[in-house]
Amino acid sequence: MQVSRLDEADRNAVLEQLPLWSYDADAKGIRRTLRFADFAEAFGFMARVAILAEKADHHPEWFNVYNRVEILLTTHDAGGLSRRDVDLAAAIDAIAPTA
Amino acid sequence: MQVSRLDEADRNAVLEQLPLWSYDADAKGIRRTLRFADFAEAFGFMARVAILAEKADHHPEWFNVYNRVEILLTTHDAGGLSRRDVDLAAAIDAIAPTA
Repeated sequence: MQVSRLDEADRNAVLEQLPLWSYDADAKGIRRTLRFADFAEAFGFMARVAILAEKADHHPEWFNVYNRVEILLTTHDAGGLSRRDVDLAAAIDAIAPTA
Repeated sequence: MQVSRLDEADRNAVLEQLPLWSYDADAKGIRRTLRFADFAEAFGFMARVAILAEKADHHPEWFNVYNRVEILLTTHDAGGLSRRDVDLAAAIDAIAPTA
């Protein structure tokens, strides 16, 4: 399924719905960093996200060190942020711990 | 357990045992990049490494995008590469697919 990049107005509108994510103009995507009690909790969260991502057939670019997980969502095929990133971000927020 | 940084001679000796890893002087650690058939295989590998890491109580700094996994091993407490990194690198090599 071809997916198109959100224009700036749409992007600003969706970012209001995703206050925990910030737009990275260089990476043309949205970022969120999460912290957990320890590595096991961080990786457990990653495993849940991995399953969501695989189901959506849309995958994050992410970095982990110990209890920290940094996620970047972008859609290479669209050359920027797309609805697929927004949907995955919302799904991630739904399973992230509310600290 | 306090762990000490390997000196340059020891580091060079262990790097000969780990030909798939390269020393990153800036990060003061060793890096290896692995590629898999797809995200599910890449993340499956990460899950196995996560268990190894947790068992060793020594954790990677790692990045994943789709089928690619980039691993950096360093020992912050030691200010550089230590025996713990070498042991974890060898354990990772032992479970990595030999392509």
